[in-house]
Amino acid sequence: MPQFPIEKRSKVSRNPNRASYDRETIYNIVDEALYCHVGFIEGESPYVIPTLHTRITSNIILHGAKDSRLMKCLQLGKEVCIAITILDGLVLARSACYHSVNYRSVVLFGRGVAINEKGEKLEALKALTEHIVRGRWKDIRKPSQQELDATAVVSIPIEAASAKIRTGPPIDALEDLDLPIWAGVIPLKLQAFEPEADPQLGAGIPVPDYVSSMRK
Amino acid sequence: MPQFPIEKRSKVSRNPNRASYDRETIYNIVDEALYCHVGFIEGESPYVIPTLHTRITSNIILHGAKDSRLMKCLQLGKEVCIAITILDGLVLARSACYHSVNYRSVVLFGRGVAINEKGEKLEALKALTEHIVRGRWKDIRKPSQQELDATAVVSIPIEAASAKIRTGPPIDALEDLDLPIWAGVIPLKLQAFEPEADPQLGAGIPVPDYVSSMRK
Repeated sequence: MPQFPIEKRSKVSRNPNRASYDRETIYNIVDEALYCHVGFIEGESPYVIPTLHTRITSNIILHGAKDSRLMKCLQLGKEVCIAITILDGLVLARSACYHSVNYRSVVLFGRGVAINEKGEKLEALKALTEHIVRGRWKDIRKPSQQELDATAVVSIPIEAASAKIRTGPPIDALEDLDLPIWAGVIPLKLQAFEPEADPQLGAGIPVPDYVSSMRK
Repeated sequence: MPQFPIEKRSKVSRNPNRASYDRETIYNIVDEALYCHVGFIEGESPYVIPTLHTRITSNIILHGAKDSRLMKCLQLGKEVCIAITILDGLVLARSACYHSVNYRSVVLFGRGVAINEKGEKLEALKALTEHIVRGRWKDIRKPSQQELDATAVVSIPIEAASAKIRTGPPIDALEDLDLPIWAGVIPLKLQAFEPEADPQLGAGIPVPDYVSSMRK
């Protein structure tokens, strides 16, 4: 896969050694993250809204109520910036200014295109559901026509994107290495815990494998 | 504490029952989250950048390299929107459209003011460090004058802010409650794992209590 074009808006200028424009690298981060932050402009103000996402080929898929601020902006095709961030660890150096975090992040740019065709809309909602819990779609009641009509679904073809990744131990200045200060990384991970059944759940309905297997 | 003013830009219109403008509610979310996403406008494009933050009274504190895109914008005092999101769980309903997530999020607006006075700048950097690892500041080498000069630190007085919170089990339509489909919540939490010492760490330097206690 060819890498994304390096545009002024997507070029990483700070720590360019941590940057990547490689599609596979970017898609892996997009696919692992459960949610994203969408930035857009309304009037003369910037807005940032968290929302769930998924990816179909080179398009980001978002959904929401038709009359929400975010979905209105997306349906109008205005430029948006989407940031996706996975925090992997806290990096404790010997000196204050070399403290950091390990992370994998993506910043991408594009414009929304409304998905109105029923089959395509269902495919997009399926992808959104499966992105959060793989295996779920086959089990659930599918959207009714009325539910489909109330939901806006947009596709955002990625125009430009960059990833930024930091891994590994702290990087202290040479003259600080002998200081008697603990240094290292505290790994972080978003963990799933014991599922909590809906209090209204009927008797004898087992926890599906795709739910119980999320707890590692 | 009086609540934040409800302005057009900060008013939650979707699911207003999940909204709060209460300062304590908002500060608790800001203080628990390790990082935020900052939205700003450059040229005619929206940008969103993830970064570490802390809070001092009613101000958000950010820092970074002086010549980064984000810090340049903040030092110019342009309006920014900061989103802070904590994902607490996946909410699996019986029907596709009632799937959701449990979360606590804040969206706030303000403008940066550069912190240039040395004592104030050190206090802000201390707060940023302690926000990530409480107890760390006393142990580490403090910033040199040269390091201070290379780092921009800005305070963003919060002008308007709202929180949005979802908790609890799925809310299915009444007619779906009898479907033989598992429904419930998968709790999620960002967990700390076994600390990894810097390979260059000198012998006999113990892991500090504030590091080992992060693993629960």
